[in-house]
Amino acid sequence: MYSCDTLNDQKQDKAAIISVLRAQENAWSKNDIDGYMQGYWKSDSLKFYGSNGKIAYGWDKTLSNYKKRYPTPDHTGTLKFKVNDITKIENESYYVMGEYHLTRTIGNANGIFMIIFRKINGEWKVVADTTP
Amino acid sequence: MYSCDTLNDQKQDKAAIISVLRAQENAWSKNDIDGYMQGYWKSDSLKFYGSNGKIAYGWDKTLSNYKKRYPTPDHTGTLKFKVNDITKIENESYYVMGEYHLTRTIGNANGIFMIIFRKINGEWKVVADTTP
Repeated sequence: MYSCDTLNDQKQDKAAIISVLRAQENAWSKNDIDGYMQGYWKSDSLKFYGSNGKIAYGWDKTLSNYKKRYPTPDHTGTLKFKVNDITKIENESYYVMGEYHLTRTIGNANGIFMIIFRKINGEWKVVADTTP
Repeated sequence: MYSCDTLNDQKQDKAAIISVLRAQENAWSKNDIDGYMQGYWKSDSLKFYGSNGKIAYGWDKTLSNYKKRYPTPDHTGTLKFKVNDITKIENESYYVMGEYHLTRTIGNANGIFMIIFRKINGEWKVVADTTP
């Protein structure tokens, strides 16, 4: 029951979200974790639910966890996301289900994730990330 | 920047969401998977991202996967959810980050999840579930 306009809007939203993920891949693969973090909502309300079973609260904590866990280019390696699904939640929010694939000399790493994007001040940002 | 009304609304929403989860625990723990599935959006647009790394599309597929994987009361056991976070996404949508704990004679099982709730026809339903 969508109008053409609505479907076109969703197409544009999804393309914008994918471009955020592509920018994250590029930054990560240069060991630029600060650049990678631009895809996340810069807020204390950001939540990252990670493999240690604990929620990291806020952008600063998420950044410092990444830097601790991926200290060198050998740790970050080359990141590819595989997007398996992007679905609209409401007006300006979507969820993405996908896979990350890290190619590294110290050993590859893979897994799945679900993230939630919201449009904040005209930009799509990850507001919640579950990467177990 | 929330008014008291808004905070009260959120409190009510969160209580309603928790009661859906409690009803799911009760149904599951009686091996009543159909009852458990009442917490999910009965739609082909439901998505369940599971431990096999594949997305199950739709309520019917999710139900049949559960029944295949948990054929007897020994498999379902007793379910407890631990809710670690409930956060509003937009007007009528929330995400929940939590843990499931299955106590079973055939061996316990535990893990984390992120689910998305939307209010549909006045009822809170899980529209997306990532339980890796």
